[in-house]
Amino acid sequence: MEQAEIGLVGLGVMGAALALNIAEKGHRIAVWNRTGAVTEAFHAGAGALAARIVPTQSLTDLVAAIRPPRAVILMIPAGEAVDQQIAALRPLMGPDDLIIDAGNADFHDTERRAATAEAAGVPFLGIGVSGGEEGARHGPSIMGGGPKAAWERVRPVMEAIAARHQGTPCAAWMGPGGAGHFVKTVHNGIEYADMQMIAEAYGLMRDGMGMSAAEIADVFAAWNEGPLRSYLIEISAAVARASDPETGAAMLDVILDAAGQKGTGRWTAIEAQHLATPVPVIEAAVMARNVSARLNERRAGEAVFGPGPQPLGGALTLADLEGALIAGKILCYAQGFGMLAAASVAQGWGLDLSAAARVWRAGCIIRSDMLDPMAAALGEDPARNLILSPAFAALLQRHQGALRRVTASAALNGHGLPALSSGLAWFDLMRSARGTANMLQAQRDFFGAHGFQRLDGKPIPHGPWGKHM
Amino acid sequence: MEQAEIGLVGLGVMGAALALNIAEKGHRIAVWNRTGAVTEAFHAGAGALAARIVPTQSLTDLVAAIRPPRAVILMIPAGEAVDQQIAALRPLMGPDDLIIDAGNADFHDTERRAATAEAAGVPFLGIGVSGGEEGARHGPSIMGGGPKAAWERVRPVMEAIAARHQGTPCAAWMGPGGAGHFVKTVHNGIEYADMQMIAEAYGLMRDGMGMSAAEIADVFAAWNEGPLRSYLIEISAAVARASDPETGAAMLDVILDAAGQKGTGRWTAIEAQHLATPVPVIEAAVMARNVSARLNERRAGEAVFGPGPQPLGGALTLADLEGALIAGKILCYAQGFGMLAAASVAQGWGLDLSAAARVWRAGCIIRSDMLDPMAAALGEDPARNLILSPAFAALLQRHQGALRRVTASAALNGHGLPALSSGLAWFDLMRSARGTANMLQAQRDFFGAHGFQRLDGKPIPHGPWGKHM
Repeated sequence: MEQAEIGLVGLGVMGAALALNIAEKGHRIAVWNRTGAVTEAFHAGAGALAARIVPTQSLTDLVAAIRPPRAVILMIPAGEAVDQQIAALRPLMGPDDLIIDAGNADFHDTERRAATAEAAGVPFLGIGVSGGEEGARHGPSIMGGGPKAAWERVRPVMEAIAARHQGTPCAAWMGPGGAGHFVKTVHNGIEYADMQMIAEAYGLMRDGMGMSAAEIADVFAAWNEGPLRSYLIEISAAVARASDPETGAAMLDVILDAAGQKGTGRWTAIEAQHLATPVPVIEAAVMARNVSARLNERRAGEAVFGPGPQPLGGALTLADLEGALIAGKILCYAQGFGMLAAASVAQGWGLDLSAAARVWRAGCIIRSDMLDPMAAALGEDPARNLILSPAFAALLQRHQGALRRVTASAALNGHGLPALSSGLAWFDLMRSARGTANMLQAQRDFFGAHGFQRLDGKPIPHGPWGKHM
Repeated sequence: MEQAEIGLVGLGVMGAALALNIAEKGHRIAVWNRTGAVTEAFHAGAGALAARIVPTQSLTDLVAAIRPPRAVILMIPAGEAVDQQIAALRPLMGPDDLIIDAGNADFHDTERRAATAEAAGVPFLGIGVSGGEEGARHGPSIMGGGPKAAWERVRPVMEAIAARHQGTPCAAWMGPGGAGHFVKTVHNGIEYADMQMIAEAYGLMRDGMGMSAAEIADVFAAWNEGPLRSYLIEISAAVARASDPETGAAMLDVILDAAGQKGTGRWTAIEAQHLATPVPVIEAAVMARNVSARLNERRAGEAVFGPGPQPLGGALTLADLEGALIAGKILCYAQGFGMLAAASVAQGWGLDLSAAARVWRAGCIIRSDMLDPMAAALGEDPARNLILSPAFAALLQRHQGALRRVTASAALNGHGLPALSSGLAWFDLMRSARGTANMLQAQRDFFGAHGFQRLDGKPIPHGPWGKHM
């Protein structure tokens, strides 16, 4: 029997979808799952693709079924299970055989596993796969990390199974070690932020403009024909349009306003803190989810401070909302790419920010038309903040007024816009050559003798404060 | 020679100040420092207090100089040095002898050390000491953590050396394990936030109202006679009043606007993320410091998007700024106490939030008149969010309009107010019984089948979305 080109461990939802995708693109794949019955059922249900799938019932059989030098993808739960799987698999493999963790790993774990593999002289890749089950099945966005040479070996398969943007596969090598999983982490944080900004615009339409879900659906659908065109705007129109089969009411109006989370946005915020890189829109999005879950406190809050958000009385137009979302999206992405740049410096990864933007253009949740010009802007000058690129500076100049009006009207009328308003505050700090941190430095020197620099460069690090208390 | 009541290891700035404070309050203290000459110099410079200070030149001598059951305070750099010091000291001590880490420990380390000590059957305390060198010397705020019985043994000394608020010592047991160091962590985060909100008000006066540093000093001095009365407002007046001896210019006007940080605010933000407890004002303050350090980017930002913050044209009064600061401060503290409540639940500490507010009333950097009514409000109903207490709800009702006007005017005129505006956004989320997270839940269910709850409680966790992509 012909040997497989590649192997895969873990036939859960994502692993099964990825295996079918690989087989469908013409690649012979050997699969193994801890529970053997799952492997059999998967193979039996694979239809015409079953001919290119080799089910195996032991790791030894799996390895034997793959043509050397081998490559085995792990698609299993993140954490200790991955270490255990590597420990079980590695002794069965040759020194050129490649293990690929395609799960949802914490990039710190990937860094550690990469170092262990490098010390042992064996190849290891950590790749971020985005797009959920449907993406894995029909075309995800793939962010590779590890030795470049190892990536090149599997690049043909990765490019074959990836989503395509105007013919270009959304699969690329991001950098060594945990770079791929880190880029995925930032993607997830941006996803939180994009969703929150949309929810804020939705709230302004619902509570500030008195619009029905169906009317809001029309607005999102219209925005999806303009600069905001993206998967998340598209599905926002779809969910706003949907009716509840039970009650006939708009689906949105029957869903409880308490957001769940798997914690991925939180991890982005934590890594950003470690890097001292500002991602306030992402932090605001995580905050909003945390507050949403505190239903009893919010109800008590409205009882004391209600009524909640008030009608805007025509102070804002729908064009204002669209402009605010355009500006907010650019600011949020600039922060996200800034986080990638900071990590690249801290880790010595040499990340190509433009490549990250390119693989996000299709397949993943945050795919949008804006990512293509972002990739171009980042390619022009990778060291330049995205907001300073001519294309996006022009967009911000055009739409910052809308973001200002929206933030101001929301503040005056009681609408909470944590993401949009924190994007604007960051923007205003970033365009102030003379900020207000001189006050912080004076305070710090007063109470803690922490010292400061002077504008004139004179080497006098302390103020004439006299006694400290 | 009479034995000492207590011992202290580490005669750096903080340790030396604390030792003098202890001696001054009538307690005989034995001291030891890794570099023996430092010990001698400290003793020689202690003046009349030298008679109550026993310098020792070995850990054995230190232990021998203290009356059993002993208590030894460590005031050394946080981290591994503390573990090494404990390892060196513990074998010389009896099973009833108490080691107290009074340094700036990460509370996770304190939790670990407490568990190790408990397993060994020996007493250990981790205490947070706030107030800098002057506080340590003349009266710090002391937040104790560890076994209650161990705290009771040293309580008389701790209360004697602590700051006093109307006669009440600002020293108290917070809870077991790392509770004391955790309360200190939240204190530090609030310190960042208080400072940032003051800097934002300063910026509005300077750039929005065209006021000189001296005029701004007068405003802070006036505010220090009202509800904002606090150490940080007081020193803001002092630093705004000071002139540069070199140039004669206002001191504030010659200090570079790039804030340093020791990372304490960052740790507060990270712990809050782990607890899923919202502290957006603290996060905004950390963000603002990070942005302030990016001078070149800010200068490039102003070159593209300038001019920076514009005159407010009389849109705001000084009373508006004062009201916004009052409201912002309450919102920030409510978040901080919410973080303490969340940690208490997660760690099983049984924290008394009111006690935390009481020890902050004097000695520490964030001491203010507002902490006394906060302690009272938290004492009335510890499970109630501070903003819902009658006293602070009334203050928020009175001043939220000012915070709204300030946030709106800043947004329209290009002033970045990350802390004040994120406080307001949180407040508006917290007083909305019907938020917008139903949109997030619909999106999450659409692309990831994450499911949702319904307002009517029906067990139908998915929408009629049809195909997922």
